[in-house]
Amino acid sequence: MGPAHCTEKKEDRVCYAYDAAASAYLPDAVVFPQNAKQISEILKLANEERFAVIPRGAGSGMTGGSVAVRRGVVLVMTRLNRILNIDKNNLIAFAEPGVVTGHFHKAVEQQGLFYPPDPASSEFSTLGGNVAECAGGPRAVKYGVTRDYVLGLEAVLPTGEIIRTGVRTAKGVVGYDLTRILTGSEGTLGVITRMTLRLLPLPETIKTITAFFDKIDAAAETVSEIIRHRIIPRTIEFMDNASIRCAENYLNIGLPTEPEALLLIEVDGTEAETASAVNALELLCLSLGAARVETAKTKADAANLWKARRAVSPALFQYGPHKINEDIVVPRSNIPDMVRKISELRDKTGLFIASFGHAGDGNIHFNIMLDKKNKTELEKADAAVDALFDYTLELGGTISGEHGVGITKSPYISREIGSAELHLMKKIKVVFDPGGILNPGKIFPE
Amino acid sequence: MGPAHCTEKKEDRVCYAYDAAASAYLPDAVVFPQNAKQISEILKLANEERFAVIPRGAGSGMTGGSVAVRRGVVLVMTRLNRILNIDKNNLIAFAEPGVVTGHFHKAVEQQGLFYPPDPASSEFSTLGGNVAECAGGPRAVKYGVTRDYVLGLEAVLPTGEIIRTGVRTAKGVVGYDLTRILTGSEGTLGVITRMTLRLLPLPETIKTITAFFDKIDAAAETVSEIIRHRIIPRTIEFMDNASIRCAENYLNIGLPTEPEALLLIEVDGTEAETASAVNALELLCLSLGAARVETAKTKADAANLWKARRAVSPALFQYGPHKINEDIVVPRSNIPDMVRKISELRDKTGLFIASFGHAGDGNIHFNIMLDKKNKTELEKADAAVDALFDYTLELGGTISGEHGVGITKSPYISREIGSAELHLMKKIKVVFDPGGILNPGKIFPE
Ligand SMILES: Cc1cc2nc3c(=O)[nH]c(=O)nc-3n(C[C@H](O)[C@H](O)[C@H](O)COP(=O)(O)OP(=O)(O)OC[C@H]3O[C@@H](n4cnc5c(N)ncnc54)[C@H](O)[C@@H]3O)c2cc1C
Ligand SMILES: Cc1cc2nc3c(=O)[nH]c(=O)nc-3n(C[C@H](O)[C@H](O)[C@H](O)COP(=O)(O)OP(=O)(O)OC[C@H]3O[C@@H](n4cnc5c(N)ncnc54)[C@H](O)[C@@H]3O)c2cc1C
Repeated sequence: MGPAHCTEKKEDRVCYAYDAAASAYLPDAVVFPQNAKQISEILKLANEERFAVIPRGAGSGMTGGSVAVRRGVVLVMTRLNRILNIDKNNLIAFAEPGVVTGHFHKAVEQQGLFYPPDPASSEFSTLGGNVAECAGGPRAVKYGVTRDYVLGLEAVLPTGEIIRTGVRTAKGVVGYDLTRILTGSEGTLGVITRMTLRLLPLPETIKTITAFFDKIDAAAETVSEIIRHRIIPRTIEFMDNASIRCAENYLNIGLPTEPEALLLIEVDGTEAETASAVNALELLCLSLGAARVETAKTKADAANLWKARRAVSPALFQYGPHKINEDIVVPRSNIPDMVRKISELRDKTGLFIASFGHAGDGNIHFNIMLDKKNKTELEKADAAVDALFDYTLELGGTISGEHGVGITKSPYISREIGSAELHLMKKIKVVFDPGGILNPGKIFPE
Repeated sequence: MGPAHCTEKKEDRVCYAYDAAASAYLPDAVVFPQNAKQISEILKLANEERFAVIPRGAGSGMTGGSVAVRRGVVLVMTRLNRILNIDKNNLIAFAEPGVVTGHFHKAVEQQGLFYPPDPASSEFSTLGGNVAECAGGPRAVKYGVTRDYVLGLEAVLPTGEIIRTGVRTAKGVVGYDLTRILTGSEGTLGVITRMTLRLLPLPETIKTITAFFDKIDAAAETVSEIIRHRIIPRTIEFMDNASIRCAENYLNIGLPTEPEALLLIEVDGTEAETASAVNALELLCLSLGAARVETAKTKADAANLWKARRAVSPALFQYGPHKINEDIVVPRSNIPDMVRKISELRDKTGLFIASFGHAGDGNIHFNIMLDKKNKTELEKADAAVDALFDYTLELGGTISGEHGVGITKSPYISREIGSAELHLMKKIKVVFDPGGILNPGKIFPE
């Protein structure tokens, strides 16, 4: 690739030694390929010389997926950043993995089209990272996750072969579903180099409602009541008091800081549809104990609310130098139980705990801010995560809705996945990567 | 399982020697297990004694998936036929694989819920067969296919281990996606014994439009224009003149038999939404050359139209004792090209060819009726299928939108799937089924 796209300098390697969850795993080198062919050659070399290769998009991952735990070469995908085609006639697009999610949103929206997956990191995450993690986001309540929009992939296998999976049509069932085994495989089965993505028509209207609750229980109950009433908004985001204060402190946009919780609800569709949905939702929230319900009057008002929601995660660092961040999911009807459990854990440990997230999916981000050098705090935090995961599974939930396993959750994976299933997954890994060179040390516990 | 649920009688074996595409593959025995445990023991025995086991739902498959090409034991799943739970609070259901699709539709609809996947065979196909084939159906245009509604599975691996995959929540990304590698694997990777399915709220209103076209080209053009206008009806079904005549001959319900084609379009949503969609669609169809557009006035009228659509496939046997049935998909904007190609093939071969199907997905069922004992006819038909597949792939399509590969399409699979990809699939098969006992001789060409 030439020296301009390959570096072994320490100061460069340091820049690629972390993601949003893990730090200080220094790789031996960082390379910036431009196409599948180059990646294929790197992977072949890696098999010959037995070094690890770690695909990396924007490094915004929440579970250490893109860090070099076994040293080796970080493969930065950001130069493969072309949107190759937006096909309005067939509602599909072809793109390279290094395209920033938010850029892709804008490009398709300019054509009156819509790509629903919208991780809160969309301003910087890449489409390739989204596919590799099967990213979710607020709009998943109505529209599903990244998996639901991937029709086909081009990928380089760890052995260097370039494969093409899936279709460019609305349907297709020929052979095993390689597209979906690659989606969510966290960069351990292949390097994604091109994607065929499904688009929708852009909804006509969006309306944004904020409901403030004095009691967090009432907010949690409201989430499951909305679903029980068979209303499917496009988002139902939840912020607890700690999250509200945190965002307000950071942004100063005038959020009231007394409510125990707020729900940020968005509906989309035609003007008539959204008007009637807003009506129904306002009444429902008020009847279930919301102290105040507001519908954003302008786009700018709505954008401000989203800014607050998206600010929570980075703004939490006001409260401690380290964050432990889990993204458990419970059946929606169990959100009230989970919210009570989190309060209990906060009272018991005395730790700073903020919870927020995509409540419409039952997906709650549980964040503990702490100083990991403080042994007692760290022990308490670990015990809290332990209890949280056990309770999640007891309720029929999962320990990760969208962030994946990476390294931070791999010690816990066998609580959720049985040994026969794990064994099968490991054998699939060997089929794809007999040399064990692609992103080793991830997902599976040692 | 006891003698009542296991038979080696010839007259019983004959009853399980065929599906909707293949016939006369006599199994050695037919068994009717009742639970995963029994299936596990059968599979363990099969590994010890080296006999083939072939899962079977209703036997309505279109590619010979459930026939015993290598003899062995047909495993009929129809006794696992309980709907275990419909969870209104979380919009999910738990069901066994032997539940008939149409029964499941009725059961969830009684609770105000909706399970979109609706193969035209839903009155007799099973949910397990639907998952194994990743069945589609008319409503896939708006709602996607079976894959999009499977959250988790219980399956018995060919080695006898019982595994649980996926989640019972709206999202989940822990480990590789075993749920979706099993979905569409055509009974070759595991026997599905339980399913967690996603439901939606039942749409308030449905409106059914029929548009008759004097020229088939105009009908085909209309399908892609609808999508181009970013209207997403829940179905856009297409019937050519041969299909219309065939259904009318069979049912005598007063369909006009002169039009070259008709489109059966359905929209759903609130009363207001559907009213405005009907309006837009009527205008669009007329402006694009529809001779007549009718909106069904009553549910009975709409039901009659669907009866006609569903009758086409069985009614075709009026025109010949054998059917060759392909379910190719092309990008929606290429439907006009495909329709022209089919006319060309009809003119060239002089064969009876009917085409109909889920045009909204670009999914066209291409049917040749013939007497396979007539060598010349058979040769012409094979050549026509050959040309059809080549042209489909040239247009960026796939040779199967929903029927799978089974035995009838396996000679063609390598035209669509490259050798590296096929090799990978075969290695995955070996991981799941090292003994090669589960549904051997399917998907992969010898
Ligand atoms: C503030 C913030 C908010 C977030 N909000 C959300 C949210 O709402 N929903 C959500 O799902 N996630 C969220 N995330 C997590 C993260 O942004 C997503 O997981 C995202 O998909 C990662 O994309 P990336 O490009 O940064 O990937 P990276 O972090 O670089 O990599 C992630 C994983 O993907 C692999 N990978 C990357 N590119 C490729 C490729 N081309 N081929 C193969 N493997 C590859 C890597 O090896 C790694 O395992 C958030 C993160 C932050 C920091
Ligand atoms: C008139 C007619 C119309 C049709 N219309 C459509 C349509 O619109 N859309 C569509 O997609 N299909 C359609 N089909 C095809 C067929 O109905 C579907 O493929 C259906 O999903 C098959 O279900 P089944 O229960 O009959 O399965 P079978 O035919 O018995 O089996 C199909 C495959 O699934 C496997 N299998 C069955 N049960 C299990 C299980 N529990 N575990 C593992 N593997 C299993 C079998 O081994 C086989 O490979 C139609 C068929 C007919 C006859």
